[in-house]
Amino acid sequence: MTWSVYLAGEIHTDWREDIATGAKAANLPVTFTGPVTDHDASDDCGVAIMGAEDQKFWHDHKGAKLNAIRTRKMLEDADIVVVRFGEKYKQWNAAFDAGQAYALGKSLIVMHQDEHQHPLKEVDAAALAVVKTPQQVVEILTYVINGTLPD
Amino acid sequence: MTWSVYLAGEIHTDWREDIATGAKAANLPVTFTGPVTDHDASDDCGVAIMGAEDQKFWHDHKGAKLNAIRTRKMLEDADIVVVRFGEKYKQWNAAFDAGQAYALGKSLIVMHQDEHQHPLKEVDAAALAVVKTPQQVVEILTYVINGTLPD
Amino acid sequence: MTWSVYLAGEIHTDWREDIATGAKAANLPVTFTGPVTDHDASDDCGVAIMGAEDQKFWHDHKGAKLNAIRTRKMLEDADIVVVRFGEKYKQWNAAFDAGQAYALGKSLIVMHQDEHQHPLKEVDAAALAVVKTPQQVVEILTYVINGTLPD
Amino acid sequence: MTWSVYLAGEIHTDWREDIATGAKAANLPVTFTGPVTDHDASDDCGVAIMGAEDQKFWHDHKGAKLNAIRTRKMLEDADIVVVRFGEKYKQWNAAFDAGQAYALGKSLIVMHQDEHQHPLKEVDAAALAVVKTPQQVVEILTYVINGTLPD
Amino acid sequence: MTWSVYLAGEIHTDWREDIATGAKAANLPVTFTGPVTDHDASDDCGVAIMGAEDQKFWHDHKGAKLNAIRTRKMLEDADIVVVRFGEKYKQWNAAFDAGQAYALGKSLIVMHQDEHQHPLKEVDAAALAVVKTPQQVVEILTYVINGTLPD
Amino acid sequence: MTWSVYLAGEIHTDWREDIATGAKAANLPVTFTGPVTDHDASDDCGVAIMGAEDQKFWHDHKGAKLNAIRTRKMLEDADIVVVRFGEKYKQWNAAFDAGQAYALGKSLIVMHQDEHQHPLKEVDAAALAVVKTPQQVVEILTYVINGTLPD
Amino acid sequence: MTWSVYLAGEIHTDWREDIATGAKAANLPVTFTGPVTDHDASDDCGVAIMGAEDQKFWHDHKGAKLNAIRTRKMLEDADIVVVRFGEKYKQWNAAFDAGQAYALGKSLIVMHQDEHQHPLKEVDAAALAVVKTPQQVVEILTYVINGTLPD
Amino acid sequence: MTWSVYLAGEIHTDWREDIATGAKAANLPVTFTGPVTDHDASDDCGVAIMGAEDQKFWHDHKGAKLNAIRTRKMLEDADIVVVRFGEKYKQWNAAFDAGQAYALGKSLIVMHQDEHQHPLKEVDAAALAVVKTPQQVVEILTYVINGTLPD
Repeated sequence: MTWSVYLAGEIHTDWREDIATGAKAANLPVTFTGPVTDHDASDDCGVAIMGAEDQKFWHDHKGAKLNAIRTRKMLEDADIVVVRFGEKYKQWNAAFDAGQAYALGKSLIVMHQDEHQHPLKEVDAAALAVVKTPQQVVEILTYVINGTLPD
Repeated sequence: MTWSVYLAGEIHTDWREDIATGAKAANLPVTFTGPVTDHDASDDCGVAIMGAEDQKFWHDHKGAKLNAIRTRKMLEDADIVVVRFGEKYKQWNAAFDAGQAYALGKSLIVMHQDEHQHPLKEVDAAALAVVKTPQQVVEILTYVINGTLPD
Repeated sequence: MTWSVYLAGEIHTDWREDIATGAKAANLPVTFTGPVTDHDASDDCGVAIMGAEDQKFWHDHKGAKLNAIRTRKMLEDADIVVVRFGEKYKQWNAAFDAGQAYALGKSLIVMHQDEHQHPLKEVDAAALAVVKTPQQVVEILTYVINGTLPD
Repeated sequence: MTWSVYLAGEIHTDWREDIATGAKAANLPVTFTGPVTDHDASDDCGVAIMGAEDQKFWHDHKGAKLNAIRTRKMLEDADIVVVRFGEKYKQWNAAFDAGQAYALGKSLIVMHQDEHQHPLKEVDAAALAVVKTPQQVVEILTYVINGTLPD
Repeated sequence: MTWSVYLAGEIHTDWREDIATGAKAANLPVTFTGPVTDHDASDDCGVAIMGAEDQKFWHDHKGAKLNAIRTRKMLEDADIVVVRFGEKYKQWNAAFDAGQAYALGKSLIVMHQDEHQHPLKEVDAAALAVVKTPQQVVEILTYVINGTLPD
Repeated sequence: MTWSVYLAGEIHTDWREDIATGAKAANLPVTFTGPVTDHDASDDCGVAIMGAEDQKFWHDHKGAKLNAIRTRKMLEDADIVVVRFGEKYKQWNAAFDAGQAYALGKSLIVMHQDEHQHPLKEVDAAALAVVKTPQQVVEILTYVINGTLPD
Repeated sequence: MTWSVYLAGEIHTDWREDIATGAKAANLPVTFTGPVTDHDASDDCGVAIMGAEDQKFWHDHKGAKLNAIRTRKMLEDADIVVVRFGEKYKQWNAAFDAGQAYALGKSLIVMHQDEHQHPLKEVDAAALAVVKTPQQVVEILTYVINGTLPD
Repeated sequence: MTWSVYLAGEIHTDWREDIATGAKAANLPVTFTGPVTDHDASDDCGVAIMGAEDQKFWHDHKGAKLNAIRTRKMLEDADIVVVRFGEKYKQWNAAFDAGQAYALGKSLIVMHQDEHQHPLKEVDAAALAVVKTPQQVVEILTYVINGTLPD
C-alpha cells in the first residue's frame, strides 16, 4: 500500500524537503506532490506559453488556470493533504486548497504557528491533525502507516 | 424555479443586505443564506452550549464545528456561492468556503477590490464571475434568472 | 410528479414556444427552462455588468461564464434535455451542452433534420430519442408522462 | 506519478503525433489516448462487425456506439482532455466530447485558431487553457508536470 | 415526509391498483409510479412518434428508449422499488430494473411465488424484503412509515 | 429553508420528545425523524408481515431489513444526525448508524454521558458536536438555524 | 492501458473461453473476469462454508450473497460488461447484472440469438453493442482497443 | 486481479494473523490492512506527536483523529471489510467502521459468536456474510476469488 501526500501552501521555506527527507529516512512508502514552487514560473506560466496580456487580471488568470491543472490532478490523487500557512502574505490559495481537499474527503493536516490559531479555526476544525513542524508530519505519517510512535 | 445563493465571507459591512434588497426590488425568486454574522456568538457558540474550555484552541474548535453544521447544509443547498473578501483580517475561512464550494461544483462568484487581485488569482480563476459591488451581484442574478441586463 | 425539461441549442426560431404551447394544451406537468435567447444580451452580458474588455476573447469569456451559471443550474435540475441543431452556424455550444447532459445522466432528446444526420451520429447515439419537430417532443413528453400516444 | 491525456477532435492532421513526439522528447511521464483516427473504420465499424443496415441512420448508430465504448473508457481514465477543432466539418463530436470531459471534472484544454473564437466561447470558458498549436500543449504538459517553462 | 415507490415488473394483473388502494385506505403519504402498462402503447411508442422501422429490432429499440426516459426519472426519484415477477414471460426487463435499482442504492422489495425462488435468488439476496402479495407490500409500507404492524 | 434531523440510537427514554418539544417551543423549521421506537414491533416486524422463521437469526434478519428501509430513507434525507448512546445494552446499531451518517457526509451530533467517553472516542472524533442533554441539541439547532445563543 | 471485461450470464457453454482465446490470439491487453461457473459450488457455497439451512430460501440466500461479493468487485473494476443470454432457464441474474452494470455506467455488450430479441429489448436498448457470437465480442474488443477491423 | 481486505474490530486476539496465514497458505492474491493494534500507541498517538492535553476528552480526540487518517485510507481502498466483534468491551468503533463500510458500498463480512446475534442484527443484515471463525473468512476469500470450496 502506497500513500500519496499533497503538500500545499507556503512556498518560501524548505518544509517540503524536510518532510520528504524525514519520510525517506523512515523508509515510508509515500509519494509527495505539491505546487510549482518557482514563484516566477508560477506567476508567469500562462503568458509565457499562451501569449502576453495587457491586463494583470488576465495575466494572472491564465497562469492560475494552468496551475489548476496540476493542483486538480494532485489533489484528486492524494490520500492526505498537508497545508502549511507561513508567517507572511495573504495565502488565500492555501486556504482555498484546504477547502477543496476537505470537500473531496481527503485527510487534512494543517501546519501553522500559534499566532494564526484564531483566524484558522475553521480550517483546523476540518482537519484531522494540526501541527507546527515538518517533523510532526513525518511522525504522523510514520504512525498512520507503520503504527509506531517516536521514542 | 427557485435559486439558492449562499453569501460567504466578510461579516463587517452590510453587503448581504444590499444584495437582498436589490434582489427583492427586482422580484427575483432567490433565497439567500449565509453564516452567522454576530461575531461574538460565532466565536463563543461552542462553549456557550457545550461548556467552557481552558484552551483557546479547543474553545475555537468547538465553535468552528457548530458553525460548520450551518455552513455544510447551506453550501450543499446552494446553486450559487458568492464569497466577499473585505479589506481587513486574514479571511482564510472565506477562501476555505470558496474551496469547498468549487469542489462541490457550485457556481462561484468572488467579490473583492483591485488591491487583492493578485493574492486571489487562484480563487478568481475558479469563479464564474469576479465583481466589486453588491449591485453587480444583483445584476448577475437578474441576468442569469431573467435574461435581462441593466439599462 | 413534475418534470423539468431543459431546451438547449438553436435560438433563432420559435421551437421552444411551440413545445411549451403543445405541453400546455396537453396539460403536462412540465417546467421548461432554457438559455437566454436574446442573442445580444447573451453575447454582451459579461462586459455590461463587469466592465468592458479590449480583447474580444475576454469579452466573450466573461459573458460565456455568466451564461454558464444559468446553464449549470438548469442542466442539473433537468430530467430531460432536448437539444435542437438548426440549419445555420457552428452550434458547438449545443453539442457541448449535449455532452454535459449525457455525462450527467440526463435523458437526452436530439432534434435535427436529415442533412445533419451523419455529423451528429455520436450525439444521436447517446440520445434516447432523435426527432425532427417540436410536435414530436410534445408527443414524447405526453407518452412518457401519461402513457398515451397520439391518435 | 503518471498522467493520462486524451486527445479528442480533429482527425485529419498529425497534431496527435506532434504532441506525442514533443512529450517524448521532453521525457514526460504521459500516456496519450484518442479516438480511432482511421475515418473509414470509424464510420463502418458497427456494420462490419454486427451486420449491414439498410438505413444510414442505423449504420452510423451502430458505429457510433462502438466508438463510444472506446471514448468512455479513455475519457474516464484521463486527467487532461485536449480537444482540437480544425478548419473544416461540423465537428460536433469534438464539442460533445468536450462537454462530457467538463462534466466529468477533467482538465480541459481547447486548441483552435482565431476564426473559431466566437462560436467556441462556451467551450473555451470551460477550459483551463486555450491554445493554437501542439507545441503549446507540450509546453503546458511540461510546465504542469515538471514546473519548467520554455526558454 | 413523503415516500416515492416505483412499482416495476409484471403488467398483466391489477397488483399496482391493489397496492395503491391499500395504501390509500391506510392514509399513507406515498406516491406510486410505474411503467406504462398499456402493452401495445409500450411496444409501439417509438415508431408511432418517430416513424416506422422495417426491422423489428429497431422498432423495439426506439420504443424501449422512450420507455427508458420514464423509467430513469421514476427510478431516480424513488425511495423504494417494488419488482413483481409474474408467472409468465421472460420478464428480463423486471430483473433489469431490479439491477438498476440496487446499483442506485434504492430499497428493493421483490414479489414472486415460491416456484421462482431459486432462479430469483440473486435478486432476492439484494432485496430488503421478499413478499408474495400486494397486501404484504402495503403492510411493509405501513410499518416503515408509521411503525405499526397488522393486527 | 427547512432542516431535517434524524434522531438515532437509544429508544428507552423520552429524549426524542424532549428535543421535539424544545424545537417546537423555539419555532424551529425542523422535521424530526427516527427509528420505530416500539421495541416489540421493531423486533418482530419481519415475521409478522412475511411469515415466521424457526431460526432466531433469520427472524431478526427479516426484521432488521425492514427497519433498514426506514433508516435508509431517513438518513439520506437528513441534514443532521443525532445519535444518543444510553446507559444500557450494546447499542451497536447506534454506532452503526453513526458510521453510515458520517460516510454519507451528514453533520453528526453525539449524545452520551462521561462514562462512555473513552469507548466512543472514534465516534466523537467524527462528530461536529458532543453533548449530554436534549436541551443542548435544541440549543445547537437554535444556533445553527437562527444564529442565537441561549441567554 | 489495460481493459477489464466482466463476462456475465450463461454458464453452460464455453463462450468465455472462446472470447479469451480470441483475445489472446489478437494479443489484446484485456483481463477477463466472470462469475463462478461451477454450478454446484455456486449454489452451495453459502452453506458449505457457513453451515446448513433447513429452508431452501436461506440456503440460496447465503450462497447468493457470497457470490455477490465476487460480482460486486468484478463489476466495479470492469470497463466493459458482456452479458450472454442462453437458450434455457430464466436467467434473471443475467438481466440483474446487466441492470447493475448499466446503472454503474459500464459499457454494456449483450449477446443473444434472434428468438430473444423482443423480451430483451430494454436490455439491448441500454447496450452499446448487441451481438450473437463470441467472435463478434473479440472483434469489438480488437476494434475499440486497436482501431482495426476484421479483414 | 488483487483484492484488498480491511480487518476491523477486536484487537486483543490473533484473528488477523490467522486469516493472513490461511490466505497465504492458499496463495490468495489478497492484501490485508487493519487498524494499529498496539493498544497504547493507538490511545496515545495524538498527544505523543502533537502535545499533551489536560482533558481526557481532547487526549482521546487527537488520537482518534490520527487513527481516522489510517482508517479512511484503508477503508476506501478495501474491496471487502471484515469486522470482528469480540467477547469484551463496548466495541462501538467496530460498529462505527461497519457503518462506514456499508455506506461506502464495501462488501461487509461480520464475525461474532452466537451470544451477540441479537444486538448485532442490524449489522448482520447489512453484511454479505456472517461467520464465527477466521477459517471461514479464509474459505470465503478462497471461494470468491478462486471459485473453489473447502473439501
